[in-house]
Amino acid sequence: MTASRGRPRDAGADVAILRAGLELFIERGVEGTSMEQIARKAGVGKPTIYRRWATKEELISAAMETLVVAETGWASPEAIATESPYELVEAAIEGAAVATTTPQYRALVARVFGSAVSHPELMATYWRRYILPRRRLAAALLERARELGTVAADANPDVAIDMMVGAVTYRVLQPDPPDVDEMRRYLREVYRQVGLLPD
Amino acid sequence: MTASRGRPRDAGADVAILRAGLELFIERGVEGTSMEQIARKAGVGKPTIYRRWATKEELISAAMETLVVAETGWASPEAIATESPYELVEAAIEGAAVATTTPQYRALVARVFGSAVSHPELMATYWRRYILPRRRLAAALLERARELGTVAADANPDVAIDMMVGAVTYRVLQPDPPDVDEMRRYLREVYRQVGLLPD
Repeated sequence: MTASRGRPRDAGADVAILRAGLELFIERGVEGTSMEQIARKAGVGKPTIYRRWATKEELISAAMETLVVAETGWASPEAIATESPYELVEAAIEGAAVATTTPQYRALVARVFGSAVSHPELMATYWRRYILPRRRLAAALLERARELGTVAADANPDVAIDMMVGAVTYRVLQPDPPDVDEMRRYLREVYRQVGLLPD
Repeated sequence: MTASRGRPRDAGADVAILRAGLELFIERGVEGTSMEQIARKAGVGKPTIYRRWATKEELISAAMETLVVAETGWASPEAIATESPYELVEAAIEGAAVATTTPQYRALVARVFGSAVSHPELMATYWRRYILPRRRLAAALLERARELGTVAADANPDVAIDMMVGAVTYRVLQPDPPDVDEMRRYLREVYRQVGLLPD
């Protein structure tokens, strides 16, 4: 982040503003959110916000940059290079089932997808910050599974990743979204169909 | 549709209102759309709208019910029962590649996904009206391919459908969305990985 113009920055206020922006975005979408609402929710004046961000889009993008967790929470590159893909995937299922069935996850995915055409800069930030680090790990895992022969040698990994992630994000936005138990079974079936879990 | 209250309905005005509602929804989302804007765009007074629809959500849902095409445009149940799945899928690729890369398709998918958590009734209408008829055909096609041995006997068809549709809808919302040429190749790879096209 660059230095602020004018008065020295109040880091506490910045975080409160970014949190308020992200929460309002998730709750009401870009179109339903205003700088005025963000200021009220964060308990600051509008000028404080405008000193740092010129538009709500910039602010929401900065909020995703700062607050959306980059930590993937599953396998490290080292583990992928040495351990069994089946075991790594099996070990990741519980965390993934819990994470993808929270109301917050569903709501954030809906809003990011929902603004992908009207506000592509928000999807671009989310993509770079949240999705790409996970895709890199998934690509390494698929490559390893390919070497071991459980994933077809000619399978396009980008498409395979889209099929896994696309299925899960699509599923959580469908009517009658899954609970954790159902999501566990769902993830197992997705990974199995791709070749990342045994038949 | 039920009969209107009060004055006899003007079917032309109804269509203009529904079209205006759907266009504004796609352009600005539920939260960015108001009954006032819909009235102005449709060239009618607000009372005309409120005589038919109590809320913008009801109106947008009715617009999807009426205007989103139920016609799937590809194989009939009869063709699926008798013809080669490979040939049916091959024949459907051109239309699917064109349809899924139009700005309108991307924008509608984004908005429907985007409102899935805040306004589940819109997703429910889209699901019933647009998605379910297509899923039924896809399930029949997978079943037939299973009988013929190109799709694994134990593959869960609902998950396989989510993987295909999820991949495509996810792909068109990503940064750098595909053009028709790339989508043709993408669809081929998706169908191939599921077993609906040969290696």
